[in-house]
Amino acid sequence: MADDLLAALAEVVGATHVLTDEGTTLPFRTDWTGRWTGECRAVVRPGSTAEAAAVVRACAAAGVPVVPQGGNTGLVAGSVPAVGSVVVSTRRLDAVGEVDDSTGQITAGAGATLAAVQAAAAAAGWRYAVDLAARDTATVGGTIATNAGGHHVVRHGMTRRHVVGVEAVLPDGSVISHLGGLVKDNTGYDLAGLLCGSEGTLGVITAARLALVPAVEQRAVALVGFTGTAAAVAAIGPLRRRLPALEALELVFADGVAAVGEARGARPPFDGAAALLLVEVAGSGDLLEGLAPVLADLDGVVDTAVATDGPRCEELWRWRDDHTDVINQVGDTPPHKLDVTVPLDRLGRFVEEVRALVADLAPAARLWLFGHAGDGNLHVNVTGLAPDDETVDRAVVELVAGSGGSISAEHGIGRAKRPWLHLNRTPEEIAAFRSIKDALDPAGILNPGVLVPERR
Amino acid sequence: MADDLLAALAEVVGATHVLTDEGTTLPFRTDWTGRWTGECRAVVRPGSTAEAAAVVRACAAAGVPVVPQGGNTGLVAGSVPAVGSVVVSTRRLDAVGEVDDSTGQITAGAGATLAAVQAAAAAAGWRYAVDLAARDTATVGGTIATNAGGHHVVRHGMTRRHVVGVEAVLPDGSVISHLGGLVKDNTGYDLAGLLCGSEGTLGVITAARLALVPAVEQRAVALVGFTGTAAAVAAIGPLRRRLPALEALELVFADGVAAVGEARGARPPFDGAAALLLVEVAGSGDLLEGLAPVLADLDGVVDTAVATDGPRCEELWRWRDDHTDVINQVGDTPPHKLDVTVPLDRLGRFVEEVRALVADLAPAARLWLFGHAGDGNLHVNVTGLAPDDETVDRAVVELVAGSGGSISAEHGIGRAKRPWLHLNRTPEEIAAFRSIKDALDPAGILNPGVLVPERR
Repeated sequence: MADDLLAALAEVVGATHVLTDEGTTLPFRTDWTGRWTGECRAVVRPGSTAEAAAVVRACAAAGVPVVPQGGNTGLVAGSVPAVGSVVVSTRRLDAVGEVDDSTGQITAGAGATLAAVQAAAAAAGWRYAVDLAARDTATVGGTIATNAGGHHVVRHGMTRRHVVGVEAVLPDGSVISHLGGLVKDNTGYDLAGLLCGSEGTLGVITAARLALVPAVEQRAVALVGFTGTAAAVAAIGPLRRRLPALEALELVFADGVAAVGEARGARPPFDGAAALLLVEVAGSGDLLEGLAPVLADLDGVVDTAVATDGPRCEELWRWRDDHTDVINQVGDTPPHKLDVTVPLDRLGRFVEEVRALVADLAPAARLWLFGHAGDGNLHVNVTGLAPDDETVDRAVVELVAGSGGSISAEHGIGRAKRPWLHLNRTPEEIAAFRSIKDALDPAGILNPGVLVPERR
Repeated sequence: MADDLLAALAEVVGATHVLTDEGTTLPFRTDWTGRWTGECRAVVRPGSTAEAAAVVRACAAAGVPVVPQGGNTGLVAGSVPAVGSVVVSTRRLDAVGEVDDSTGQITAGAGATLAAVQAAAAAAGWRYAVDLAARDTATVGGTIATNAGGHHVVRHGMTRRHVVGVEAVLPDGSVISHLGGLVKDNTGYDLAGLLCGSEGTLGVITAARLALVPAVEQRAVALVGFTGTAAAVAAIGPLRRRLPALEALELVFADGVAAVGEARGARPPFDGAAALLLVEVAGSGDLLEGLAPVLADLDGVVDTAVATDGPRCEELWRWRDDHTDVINQVGDTPPHKLDVTVPLDRLGRFVEEVRALVADLAPAARLWLFGHAGDGNLHVNVTGLAPDDETVDRAVVELVAGSGGSISAEHGIGRAKRPWLHLNRTPEEIAAFRSIKDALDPAGILNPGVLVPERR
């Protein structure tokens, strides 16, 4: 049976694109965090939408689960295969079309990286507004399946806003395709929006029509140090209201900045700040003219570093962006990563509470906080915990839910957070998810064990 | 049975809110166009979400279809009741909350009018970006259920983009509610987005959390006359690209402008233009300074009228906005109304083709074209046709589909366009719609006959 399936898959995609060797498949079975490794029957790499559909049909006929996978940069084990499944890697579906200059849209294969789409957009004088640290590996399909967020959500919204249409293989192997690029098109349910954020449980996305935004003419970045968390959080509202060109608003803390400096052998632009906001504005004209008076009005500012030229902007951004790499180097075990939103008016209090909570539950562990504060989104990383001990994780998500927040701001639910979905979603909502899942995937072929809890 | 149900409904909402008299229910049974009138068992007006849920449960228990209805301003008979159904009017659910100034969000009941939400937003220094001519009657719930478009889509997108979360009664009478207002919240399928545009077939929306945009400080409106359709359409691309503050871009033609002038006893600002674009820019600073050079660069311009003060802006807008009323007065029968998008690069050709087509099929009829040209969206109205003769309608939607366009840009599918859905959607897509509908509404209680074709 298994051999029959592998033979059928090789027939579809060619034997060289059916990977079964344990070593070869390891990178497809291990997630980005390094915390989870799964088992699979094979990794299959279709070279076209038709091949992807044939692969899904063959697996469905054999009753074998399919795990769709893009760049495998997810952080919640959503693309880690279940035992006996077939990983369908979309990376070969990496065609990137021409930018349509009249609409500012582009069609890209699911396997194209964010960086490839960004480059194609930039070459035509446009910009793909979805951007995140894993841009060189994360794919169009994966970022749609997870409704990825990133640095520019505060201005441009999550990935869903940028998806005009998708092409996807449904669990029965049929293909839906709606890539015509019409922005106004009220002809039925929003299948593209539903697939966006469905984490590979409803379809294998094979291509997408994406909306671009005008290229940035100029940008300015300010790193603003505050006396404490309360002052930094209090500045978020005024910055959002007074800076229509606000492109990113990130929060970091003294300990994270110190660790980045140590790793880079570099000194931060100034000392003495307990909490720091990275503020980016983008647009045309003299951006500093608009930025300077707004920064001058903020309370509790220790010092500010400002940049307008590209390299200096990048330099300031590294104090934020290098957090992930630096934290990954701490200790012998992978960090526990949580990604939460709390209402802005609870953010300051949440920072204090989560610090107290971790200090109490795991005195030997280290807590790292950073993130997209403009959206109320904090990444909560903890190093020095045993890989399988989720005591701290659970306490943090319970604190988040109790604060009216989301236990997953942008990473999704995957396998890792599925046991906690009920903290954010009512039984009625989860039942609705389950009904939709069962309707489109009655045999449970696509990514079982991810996102949607089993019906009780 | 029927009497039992009415008694049960009266128990829930109070007898005064169960309307059964033919005259009293007529406005709820007749659609905005006047072309369709349905029959219903009763119109029920719940006063709370709990009452709405109890109404749905009672109808479901009796096997009686439920037709959700907001302001009943739809144009595709989506809220016209089927024989024997119960209309659930959400108009009493009209509470409008306070604007949350830190996030720019507001919670509103489904029965609140667009105008009420706009007023509440304006009073707090914000703006609800969804706007359309029926604003005084159209409701939050109805505009979400139909994913309404309107004047500002070219800048702000359709209604779906502004919906942060919804509260709704599902077909089984359970209530889902996700009004916490978190913009980043990847915890499951996008139920709000799915309900948006589902035309009352998946749930009765009872409230919504809406995202606002900053209030407009200033605006400028230009009415630009062109020598012909080709010149007007050719101007759309440059206007979109060069005016980041572009807030509306509407297209009208000489015959429509003449009819508006006749109806108002007013003279257009200039003569001799075959096609006219209404251009609105909104923002801060000297808007004319940005607008003037862009207008000066356009080809084929006959003349231009520009306004920056409120009353003069309104005056120019009336040459566009009054089209609907004027057309409704023409002839003895209601106009046939179609609402289509064609790709921008096909728009000019489509205008010529649809004119030829109507002249050929119905020489005695009059064709009126106007709409949101910035989105490729044209309203195609035809007066002088027999109410039930859909020969012209069918030919137009076939032309649209053959041009790569959408047969419903913003009005939805309803009952009126359901027979033509297959022109835009493949059997695989329609099967997916049907699966979702059957999953959430297995008994087919909610708005049967609307949007989703029967399974074959």
